[in-house]
Amino acid sequence: MNKDKYISFNVIRRLPKYHSYLADLKEKGVSKVSSKELSKITGFTASQIRQDLNNFGGFGIQGTGYEVEGLYTELSQILGLNSTLSAVIFGAGNLGHAIANYTGFNKFDINIKAIFDVNKDMIGRKIKNTIVMDLKDAKKYIDDNKVKIAIICTPKDAVSGVVDIINKTKIKGVWNFAPTDLKLNKNIKVESVNLLNSLFVLSYLVKANDM
Amino acid sequence: MNKDKYISFNVIRRLPKYHSYLADLKEKGVSKVSSKELSKITGFTASQIRQDLNNFGGFGIQGTGYEVEGLYTELSQILGLNSTLSAVIFGAGNLGHAIANYTGFNKFDINIKAIFDVNKDMIGRKIKNTIVMDLKDAKKYIDDNKVKIAIICTPKDAVSGVVDIINKTKIKGVWNFAPTDLKLNKNIKVESVNLLNSLFVLSYLVKANDM
Repeated sequence: MNKDKYISFNVIRRLPKYHSYLADLKEKGVSKVSSKELSKITGFTASQIRQDLNNFGGFGIQGTGYEVEGLYTELSQILGLNSTLSAVIFGAGNLGHAIANYTGFNKFDINIKAIFDVNKDMIGRKIKNTIVMDLKDAKKYIDDNKVKIAIICTPKDAVSGVVDIINKTKIKGVWNFAPTDLKLNKNIKVESVNLLNSLFVLSYLVKANDM
Repeated sequence: MNKDKYISFNVIRRLPKYHSYLADLKEKGVSKVSSKELSKITGFTASQIRQDLNNFGGFGIQGTGYEVEGLYTELSQILGLNSTLSAVIFGAGNLGHAIANYTGFNKFDINIKAIFDVNKDMIGRKIKNTIVMDLKDAKKYIDDNKVKIAIICTPKDAVSGVVDIINKTKIKGVWNFAPTDLKLNKNIKVESVNLLNSLFVLSYLVKANDM
């Protein structure tokens, strides 16, 4: 992978989808897949798929297609999934619980190391296998454990306090579930899960289908 | 809006974003906005924005730009947000609680009418203002109340039972949080919130930034 090459965000958004479809194929024991077959599964055009994967060196062989296991491993590496993804959660409410318990993580090497909250009733308790700690200990814990990813599951009005803490650590990426913008240091990457946008897409599809 | 015209899914995905930025502008009392200014806020190119909005008749006037209030109202209508969006939730666990309590919904006319679960301890209780009902009463409730949207927040192994119920109702759209594919009737639209894909995008960004 050429680090100087600019990869468009649309391509990056498709990579986890290829990765997930390849995981399914791998599970089914499929060893080769053509861009045409991938197109049928993913709904992207075959030429789009070839173009996308070319960005990362292109692993296909003309006429025989892609080797499932190899392409899956390459994509895992590109996505940073070849080593443990360690994260902490801010907020031990319903959403924090839901994320800590999310079964979609089970197949991957995702390690939720700690959950921070201000609620004295929660502190010291465990969610799945993860301990809930006092928010005031978050900075030290993150520094000591070299945690790189923070997951924000707090109510909206607690976000700015959490962002202040994150900005003082070496956190590299924030996965944000709060419906608000974050004032993070420039070098910190953010991926926001905007639930409203997703619901509104569904609303559009239902309405368009109903007319 | 021309119902015979094919609107690409990428355009549809951007509509809620325009809608949300326009809501911000409206709140700030801004009355006009150019595609150039929208480009600065959204990160999409001005020509992309003009093209996107042209799909729906194009509400801009050359030289003066878009009227914020008018464009917001039009987009609300296109997204089906001009009438109440009524939905039921399947699953009164952490995720169901989190969705029922989601503050991002507050500004919109979103009505969670009922939550269904099999857990006897939960049935009859209220989450926010919504009653938890027995899953076996779901079909009748949905029929009687003409509910069009179902939100799946159950564990993976409860999904197929829920899908069987939904397929027997007149539900038009499913908002799916379970990390699994749904075997829904063909006429039912689905929007899946794939949390793994979102986390993997963040993982990629952190890794790419770290090299």
